[in-house]
Amino acid sequence: MAKEKPSIPKGTRDFGPQEVAKRKYILNTIEKVFIKYGFMPIETPTMENLSTLTGKYGDEGDKLLFRILDSGETLEKIRNSKFEIRNQNEFNNLIAEKGLRYDLTVPFARYVVMNRNEITFPFKRYQMQPVWRADRPQKGRYREFWQCDADVVGSDSLLHELDLINIYAEVFENLGIDVEIKINNRKVLAGIAEVVKGIEHLNTIAVAIDKLDKIGKDGVSKELTELNFTDTEIENLFDIITIKGNESEMLETLKIKLQSSQEGLKGIEELEFIFNLINQSTNEPTNLKTDFSLARGLSYYTGCIFEVAAVKGSLRSSIGGGGRYDNLTGIFGLDGVSGVGISFGLDRIYDVLEELKLFPETLSQGSSKVLICANNSIENIELSPVLQLLSKLRNEGIASELYTEKINVKKPLEKPIKYASSKKIPYAIIYTENESLKLKNLETGFQEELSMEEIIEKLKG
Amino acid sequence: MAKEKPSIPKGTRDFGPQEVAKRKYILNTIEKVFIKYGFMPIETPTMENLSTLTGKYGDEGDKLLFRILDSGETLEKIRNSKFEIRNQNEFNNLIAEKGLRYDLTVPFARYVVMNRNEITFPFKRYQMQPVWRADRPQKGRYREFWQCDADVVGSDSLLHELDLINIYAEVFENLGIDVEIKINNRKVLAGIAEVVKGIEHLNTIAVAIDKLDKIGKDGVSKELTELNFTDTEIENLFDIITIKGNESEMLETLKIKLQSSQEGLKGIEELEFIFNLINQSTNEPTNLKTDFSLARGLSYYTGCIFEVAAVKGSLRSSIGGGGRYDNLTGIFGLDGVSGVGISFGLDRIYDVLEELKLFPETLSQGSSKVLICANNSIENIELSPVLQLLSKLRNEGIASELYTEKINVKKPLEKPIKYASSKKIPYAIIYTENESLKLKNLETGFQEELSMEEIIEKLKG
Repeated sequence: MAKEKPSIPKGTRDFGPQEVAKRKYILNTIEKVFIKYGFMPIETPTMENLSTLTGKYGDEGDKLLFRILDSGETLEKIRNSKFEIRNQNEFNNLIAEKGLRYDLTVPFARYVVMNRNEITFPFKRYQMQPVWRADRPQKGRYREFWQCDADVVGSDSLLHELDLINIYAEVFENLGIDVEIKINNRKVLAGIAEVVKGIEHLNTIAVAIDKLDKIGKDGVSKELTELNFTDTEIENLFDIITIKGNESEMLETLKIKLQSSQEGLKGIEELEFIFNLINQSTNEPTNLKTDFSLARGLSYYTGCIFEVAAVKGSLRSSIGGGGRYDNLTGIFGLDGVSGVGISFGLDRIYDVLEELKLFPETLSQGSSKVLICANNSIENIELSPVLQLLSKLRNEGIASELYTEKINVKKPLEKPIKYASSKKIPYAIIYTENESLKLKNLETGFQEELSMEEIIEKLKG
Repeated sequence: MAKEKPSIPKGTRDFGPQEVAKRKYILNTIEKVFIKYGFMPIETPTMENLSTLTGKYGDEGDKLLFRILDSGETLEKIRNSKFEIRNQNEFNNLIAEKGLRYDLTVPFARYVVMNRNEITFPFKRYQMQPVWRADRPQKGRYREFWQCDADVVGSDSLLHELDLINIYAEVFENLGIDVEIKINNRKVLAGIAEVVKGIEHLNTIAVAIDKLDKIGKDGVSKELTELNFTDTEIENLFDIITIKGNESEMLETLKIKLQSSQEGLKGIEELEFIFNLINQSTNEPTNLKTDFSLARGLSYYTGCIFEVAAVKGSLRSSIGGGGRYDNLTGIFGLDGVSGVGISFGLDRIYDVLEELKLFPETLSQGSSKVLICANNSIENIELSPVLQLLSKLRNEGIASELYTEKINVKKPLEKPIKYASSKKIPYAIIYTENESLKLKNLETGFQEELSMEEIIEKLKG
């Protein structure tokens, strides 16, 4: 067999020890808060039936699904079809019935429907797993990336919106990232559409203003003009979505603008209710802002819409988002179950923490606390005392290892210390036959003769 | 769109909160020991290039790979080939260049080769991730399952074999599973082949005796007879692999039987060395047993071979295995890097713990410690004091939640307590406007009036 030069698929990554430690730090920080707010974990399979996935993410989403080739005689199937396959879709359906998880929301909806009889509602679950999308890879966008979701299904109460906002605030505070949590409401967007041009233009307006950050006011105006919006309509639209003031002033102004829209006023009421709740609770996230242009592609949202972005550094794209969807499980035959949820994007949060140098320094420690180095190659010493030392350390819960390789007897510590340094092991124990043990601090170089008990005490401290 | 009845692909599973907690318990137990022995984590992508995977697991393995359909116009490719595709392999190669991870060893070898310049050897890594195989699903065999591997590459030292044996012993002791750790050596098997019929029959013999547990002595004999082994050869073989006695007696007897085989004697020497090391260290795993019939399909092993099985209950199949492979990275162009590793099968360990009722009882706790229940529906009470109570509890690190749904005012606790019971929440705080708080132990039913501070102290204890 030819020796191939190995590589990994584009858009995917390997994670070395330091990266895994940093990713775990983020996951643990998020998970702790999820648990504190009463969410419980579930996990769903990497592969889902394509019947579960297709049609849930729009045509664009369907194209980005990774499909798994069926096992067995797929070529035979193609031959049996007499190669009369009209298009790529038909071809795909003939040879692939499974796909990789595209997000955590649809599998969660499927889970709820399949387990409806065992679940007590409201059901508060969290889920932290990778998802896959055949997107064009670019900076900050990967084909395999992790989402961390918390959702509540089976309750209409806006108290859950409050909890989710508090979770966002607390997680990012714990991570040390300054963020802005933007909030809007689908009903407000509907009201705006009604007032500006008519409810049937809701999607067009939502898609256009969603791009405001990227293409600016001029870009959005141009796009709307091309879609037959009059200058007055566009002016009215911007008039509303750029309302200024503090939160209560903005909502008061919006109330006047949307006074003719029942749905719009309902949306404002929901936002007001949430701001009131926040004022009443002691954990007051001051970084929650209304943004009447926030739409997040609307997708399945029916109530509140959330989005979180960092306010420092160069990475200002969304690191979290979510909202309320009144009938998510309806696609799987279970109607009338309202849900609200948020998602954290692990990989983007990682990039923000890296750029702003916000990872705790202690994370960069290697896994072992101490490396035992003999002053002779391991095959030339009596192993018994060394092995007993090693057992003793480990029995005390101290992560320890023994340097197992040949050494240069003239410079007996050279290779072990290079090894320890690469793993960021902070201490070495120097073992010499018939002599007492020495403990060496590898950062300062300080070294002292100590008994085994003293060493253990020192390393445990 | 028709409402489909949702399902998941065969051989895959959803995990609810209890199952996730139990799986995490196993993963954490294994991970703690890995870390204590100086192993550091890496993670590799779910998808690998098929060029990395194919040819590494034998023809049977290649058939069990899950292949990912390429994005884009695969139908076009088939058309362009004028449909002159000779076989399934050619078809697969034309439309799929990626596959799902099949084990953790080959991706690890690929990782080492790709990162050879950054890695300081010996490199001790652990990896705990799912793998996928298109096997026929059956009891205890899934298409998505987790492996937990620890490997050392870049060292010939048998001290690593010792560490790995100790890891097995310690993990299973911590989990409370009585196991037998079987050990053999590929060189011993080679010696047996040499002595019995000739080294060229090593694979045949290994494959046959590997089935001893399943088909018994008669079955193996029959198979070997059909492969032209004489009765004397078969008798000699069983004479060796069924040697009885304690470890040192067995090795002494084997030494006499294999005295004409250099390689066989080398294998015995390695086993003796390991048993000597174990006798010299204080953590003496008494459950290590030589088994001269252990072959584990040989695959890439060149030195020691390990296998672990539970000794109680109905599930006696392997829950772990591993061994030494002298040239694993050679397939990716990096020669002379020896490795030794072990694997834990999460899903089978789970099944054993479940059957033997060995999961700790505390794991069955739900995530929240306390549920706040108002004596009136949430929309009829002043929320401010309740929200402040909730914030205070969470600020103290107590996982808490508020019952948010409509209640029956005549039986105000009925619904909240049903909810708490389903999540195994152990306490409820009963809130009545203008009255003091009551803390109710939901297991005993005991209830007492307490101040907020007293409640916090009680729940933190």
